[in-house]
Amino acid sequence: MAAPQNGGDSDQQKEAKRLKTDENDAGNEGEPAVEMSISGFEVGRILRDSAREKNIFVHGKIDDQEAIIILEKTPITQDVLPEMLKNSTQMLEMRNDIYSTYQLQPPPRLNGIKTTVICPATEKHVKKYLRQETFLIEETEDDYQSITLPYINSQSFSVQWVYNILEKKAEADRIVFEDPDPQVGFVLLPDFKWDQKQLDDLYLIAIVHRRDVKSLRDLTPDHLPLLRNIREKGLEAIMKRFSVPASKLRVMLHYQPSYYHLHVHFISLDYEAPGCSVERAHLLIDVIQNLQDDPEYYRKHTLTFPIRADDALLTKFKEAGRV
Amino acid sequence: MAAPQNGGDSDQQKEAKRLKTDENDAGNEGEPAVEMSISGFEVGRILRDSAREKNIFVHGKIDDQEAIIILEKTPITQDVLPEMLKNSTQMLEMRNDIYSTYQLQPPPRLNGIKTTVICPATEKHVKKYLRQETFLIEETEDDYQSITLPYINSQSFSVQWVYNILEKKAEADRIVFEDPDPQVGFVLLPDFKWDQKQLDDLYLIAIVHRRDVKSLRDLTPDHLPLLRNIREKGLEAIMKRFSVPASKLRVMLHYQPSYYHLHVHFISLDYEAPGCSVERAHLLIDVIQNLQDDPEYYRKHTLTFPIRADDALLTKFKEAGRV
Repeated sequence: MAAPQNGGDSDQQKEAKRLKTDENDAGNEGEPAVEMSISGFEVGRILRDSAREKNIFVHGKIDDQEAIIILEKTPITQDVLPEMLKNSTQMLEMRNDIYSTYQLQPPPRLNGIKTTVICPATEKHVKKYLRQETFLIEETEDDYQSITLPYINSQSFSVQWVYNILEKKAEADRIVFEDPDPQVGFVLLPDFKWDQKQLDDLYLIAIVHRRDVKSLRDLTPDHLPLLRNIREKGLEAIMKRFSVPASKLRVMLHYQPSYYHLHVHFISLDYEAPGCSVERAHLLIDVIQNLQDDPEYYRKHTLTFPIRADDALLTKFKEAGRV
Repeated sequence: MAAPQNGGDSDQQKEAKRLKTDENDAGNEGEPAVEMSISGFEVGRILRDSAREKNIFVHGKIDDQEAIIILEKTPITQDVLPEMLKNSTQMLEMRNDIYSTYQLQPPPRLNGIKTTVICPATEKHVKKYLRQETFLIEETEDDYQSITLPYINSQSFSVQWVYNILEKKAEADRIVFEDPDPQVGFVLLPDFKWDQKQLDDLYLIAIVHRRDVKSLRDLTPDHLPLLRNIREKGLEAIMKRFSVPASKLRVMLHYQPSYYHLHVHFISLDYEAPGCSVERAHLLIDVIQNLQDDPEYYRKHTLTFPIRADDALLTKFKEAGRV
């Protein structure tokens, strides 16, 4: 299971589906439930929503039963477009030069909302859909030494699954490329969530053989040969196997990483994967340049990263009065 | 309509803005155009659309003038939710055990579509919105001097719409905050595509008063007071007006920018806006640190950026044998 990810909240729709697969306590499979009315839904709290994807996940009740309702606006398709433009109410909002903005109000039948109801819903459903709020932390050199590093050490996060890969005890058949050198070597394999059926969402991970580098924070010019080797041979291997050139790949590290064993992400530029945002991702080419010019760059710089409200590290920052 | 942006294929919404930057043939800056009717829009071809983001970009005509119309469904917000659930027509599509799906048809006033019209539109607008493949460029210091800078200068991109804002000839009522200082001052206003109806997709732009800084590449330690001022007062103004704290905001620059007049993006962390990806975005806090430690950081470093297949700058890089 290479490369766990946090993943953000972009995938709500799929989540809706996926849930069904891991829920078996709902009972009565295949039997139709009683007719229910959405108009009788009592709104409780918003579990998550996305302004970009125009959806919202709501916990509430229908006829005194726990329920979750998921609304998502439908794509605008070419077939309804002429009628939509012709028959909508039009309200001017702003005009500047050749640009103007309006609110259109189309006839209801052209502007439906896809709605999913889960009823009765269990606590498991609610937890699954609940979005954890995310905050930015600006971690200074001192914060790392006094808060983050002690936290990482105290948790002794297991990376046994990483060692299993490096030792060929697991996923050996998935390896795309390996440089076995103990200092600059690495294993390159597809990320867990890439099904390898299309190149649009190509996603591979390079996991280094050496076991003494936790994250970006540990990197010094000593690691430049390792980093350059990953970049060069990783790109070469991906070109050879998948015919995807460097100009179509984001090659990057996460800070904080999902696991504290150095690894590098190779992601199709066409794939808007969560975790590629500027607040979490660092291009390998920038990391190399920064270390070339300033040996202490990653030790002394303040590094920004996102953190979820339920992350124990956030509690540590709060206890230290840093957020 | 502050803040044109581009940002990869995914960036349809922002694209709307960027366009203004390189258009100066529209004429009549500051003067309102003639009233036009969306219902008279004749659909030509679809330039791009996104099922995920529920938007569509269409080329066509209004009253025999070339026009582009951009439709995007609006986010579903908590305030309209109870009424939407209560007063929509409900059609059952599927039922399986505890799961059921419906199509809801809400009353039109609860279910608007944000619409942008560009009229008259030029061939440049059309090209710009047409979906194109994206590549990464690694621009060295030499590349910038010998390819990018001559290209920018030769194009003499108009930023008249930016000057309209700075001079209060347009959008003056939209200004959220201004520091009028000619050296470190700026105007802060909502990005064109944020409708200000919810904070989830909060998006503001700080446009600097000085007119001699094209992009990140021009920044030196001389600009540190300007950059620190934008960060400090921009965050303060957003906290005051919208009660959104710094820990919920990405404050960042684009490289390449959509228009060559220095501006800074303030974006809700909860909003996965296109253009926030590591290959295009630079956190302001990192820019400040880099300039503090290395006066020549942005002059001499190789900078990576995404570029569309139809971008004339890509042709220049190809001609120079750099891609």
